[in-house]
Amino acid sequence: MSENKIPYKIYLEEQEMPKAWYNVRADMKNKPAPLLNPGTHEPMKAEELAGVFCEELIKQELDDTTPYFEIPEEIRDFYKMYRPSPLVRAYCLEKKLNTPAKIYYKFEGNNTSGSHKLNSAIAQAYYAKQQGLKGVTTETGAGQWGTALSMACSYFDLDCKVYMVKVSYEQKPFRREVMRTYGASVTPSPSPETEVGKKILAEFPGTTGSLGCAISEAVEAATTREGYRYVLGSVLNQVLLHQSVIGLETKAALDKYGIKPDIIIGCAGGGSNLGGLISPFMGEKLRGEADYRIIAVEPASCPSFTRGKYAYDFCDTGMVCPLAKMYTLGSSFIPAANHAGGLRYHGMSSTLSQLYADGLMEATSVKQTEVFEAAEYFARVEGILPAPESSHAIRVAIDEAKKCKETGEEKTIVFGLTGTGYFDMVAYERFHDGEMSDYIPTDEEIKACTDKLPVVE
Amino acid sequence: MSENKIPYKIYLEEQEMPKAWYNVRADMKNKPAPLLNPGTHEPMKAEELAGVFCEELIKQELDDTTPYFEIPEEIRDFYKMYRPSPLVRAYCLEKKLNTPAKIYYKFEGNNTSGSHKLNSAIAQAYYAKQQGLKGVTTETGAGQWGTALSMACSYFDLDCKVYMVKVSYEQKPFRREVMRTYGASVTPSPSPETEVGKKILAEFPGTTGSLGCAISEAVEAATTREGYRYVLGSVLNQVLLHQSVIGLETKAALDKYGIKPDIIIGCAGGGSNLGGLISPFMGEKLRGEADYRIIAVEPASCPSFTRGKYAYDFCDTGMVCPLAKMYTLGSSFIPAANHAGGLRYHGMSSTLSQLYADGLMEATSVKQTEVFEAAEYFARVEGILPAPESSHAIRVAIDEAKKCKETGEEKTIVFGLTGTGYFDMVAYERFHDGEMSDYIPTDEEIKACTDKLPVVE
Repeated sequence: MSENKIPYKIYLEEQEMPKAWYNVRADMKNKPAPLLNPGTHEPMKAEELAGVFCEELIKQELDDTTPYFEIPEEIRDFYKMYRPSPLVRAYCLEKKLNTPAKIYYKFEGNNTSGSHKLNSAIAQAYYAKQQGLKGVTTETGAGQWGTALSMACSYFDLDCKVYMVKVSYEQKPFRREVMRTYGASVTPSPSPETEVGKKILAEFPGTTGSLGCAISEAVEAATTREGYRYVLGSVLNQVLLHQSVIGLETKAALDKYGIKPDIIIGCAGGGSNLGGLISPFMGEKLRGEADYRIIAVEPASCPSFTRGKYAYDFCDTGMVCPLAKMYTLGSSFIPAANHAGGLRYHGMSSTLSQLYADGLMEATSVKQTEVFEAAEYFARVEGILPAPESSHAIRVAIDEAKKCKETGEEKTIVFGLTGTGYFDMVAYERFHDGEMSDYIPTDEEIKACTDKLPVVE
Repeated sequence: MSENKIPYKIYLEEQEMPKAWYNVRADMKNKPAPLLNPGTHEPMKAEELAGVFCEELIKQELDDTTPYFEIPEEIRDFYKMYRPSPLVRAYCLEKKLNTPAKIYYKFEGNNTSGSHKLNSAIAQAYYAKQQGLKGVTTETGAGQWGTALSMACSYFDLDCKVYMVKVSYEQKPFRREVMRTYGASVTPSPSPETEVGKKILAEFPGTTGSLGCAISEAVEAATTREGYRYVLGSVLNQVLLHQSVIGLETKAALDKYGIKPDIIIGCAGGGSNLGGLISPFMGEKLRGEADYRIIAVEPASCPSFTRGKYAYDFCDTGMVCPLAKMYTLGSSFIPAANHAGGLRYHGMSSTLSQLYADGLMEATSVKQTEVFEAAEYFARVEGILPAPESSHAIRVAIDEAKKCKETGEEKTIVFGLTGTGYFDMVAYERFHDGEMSDYIPTDEEIKACTDKLPVVE
């Protein structure tokens, strides 16, 4: 049986690592809807975006026809420090579940930022440096993106200013210190440092913040400083492009052993991990070369795919960003203080939204307590302590494996284990103490926010 | 140049992983001095140790002639979940230092326990399970060993009771929660739970604890409970045996590329990492097949090799353990509250002590601030956030690489990067805020403790 020869961890050789990122939009018949100017509702032009984003990144953002972008050598060298990441065969989990399913996970937590976010952070920092900028600003939810960007900026000697969602800032005191180790400055958001922050604080004095607020602040900070641009860790097309390295490695590792997955599962906040993981598989699906079940998993407390509207909306709470067409709960939606800070975003990547609208992928939502049950179960069996975000995918992977046990089907399940939970011990503590909320927004609460969506056309 | 072909990270294939541990004592002409019964001063017999340790582990502890012990298949399967660990070529560090030296590090932090400790934890838990025990007790300093043992016990469904040095318990609130995630109970030491803990608390009411105290408590807890034994994460011969997997993998990876190191560097607390890393290299040295400079690095605040006495001493503060001949500061020595909790031990492995006494290795000590400077420098260049313990080795590796820059020598330096610093952010914060102590014990303070060494023969 060749099956027996599959190791616990499949590592690609350095020379097998991807040399180009894959742009799934090139293979989409229905392209993602363009970003619109919030004033004119006309598609954003590169010139209009140039005050906010780096030039090279704008090209990547707007290009929906070029299938591959070469990865610059400096970025490939940096990737070599922590990539390829292992594709792990979850033998122990399979055994514990007593399932005929074959479970694999692509583990992106083996770097100091603790997550997949570094894949795009280093690319964005590289292009900022190439453009001769002084520094970048950004927001961070769980702190994974902020940490990744701090590392990347430190590597290229760029200044890094991070607005961190207040609830995460308070839950993760040590995250700030890691970013500081890498030389970044960190501000809890909303803050009185920006005009938009002041406005939000005045309107919602007790707010725990959201990614949407923090984005507004970071954009304002970038556009009001000389030599700075704004960078974002999710949602954007450019981010999905960089994150395609996850999927490309996963596919190369599977191909090496002749494995064809049946189900591919990823957690979804803004879509960075999911979009990256699925990209080459989705490409095959779009080109009619293969078929896969692809499942996005989101928190029940912030269910943009499963309960949101597919419409144009602001990417940020302060409404300073371009409009994007996406599944959204409304930019004024502030989710309950779920511990998966990285998934507390009101909208979803335009690319993934279009693919979902076209029926090319599924979506499901899971409750917080179920997620932590899966997280602890997985930690004990597979040894890795997962991030709450990643554990959304674990939950559904386990559920699918259990279904295989019932039906006797030997399905191959691949999921993205995006990061580690070392900085989430407050959340684990709440879970252990039975103090975890499973609050789910009511239809009225969602409607109150989606009713405020901007009217386009 | 074949040099160009060396990847950033050398991973062994699963089938190249060691199938047996190497027992360096088998090749030593001067064997390590035996453990003595603290009452009779006669060498401890297996029967006498049976109340404290697991039977199979006692055999390993006392055997100084068998060169290889086969690794049981269950342990090899567990190893496959997180091993082989990468041997990393520090290209970025070399470039930043502008040194002709070639620097490699064996990175043991890529598992949830965050350190090399898991290598021995899983072995000890396995033998405890084989013996039909209910559970084990132990001490932990930095929390790395306790976390590793919690994971291992969870895997084999054993109860796990951890006494954690108080200063670490307070500095690392989230460590407790990780252990809890794996089902362990954690008590700050000294505690009023044990007789020896009560005694120490009465004598030193404000004590921040030490590994020596915590060992006494854990031993008492094991010997006063039915179905429990005590396990230890360092110092003992059995631990060095299990940790030889680090050195064996390192040597196999180097051999694969025809690399011969000149200098091998490891941090030294009780000796678990250093003893494991150097074992196969020391074996060659003992058999006259090769020569290497081997350097132990210890904190200046707890300098057992460099300022201790080579004599019989108690392994624990409470003097309930057998006597071991080792470089020691005296079992009553309580080091300053250094942040490298894992190196705050008064003595050193008997095996390493004998090798050091025989001039087969060197030792040096470094101050805390210098260590954190090296840690932050390394983090920014190589991306990995190192544990304070590991950073002792980084400090000396950097210093040796700088010497190569001066002399122009292209030396090959290998060091052990034992773990990650995710749970050490309080220490990093103190460092950033300039609040880090560099206290070094005076000669009088050390003499006061070594004067109390037990008189043997």
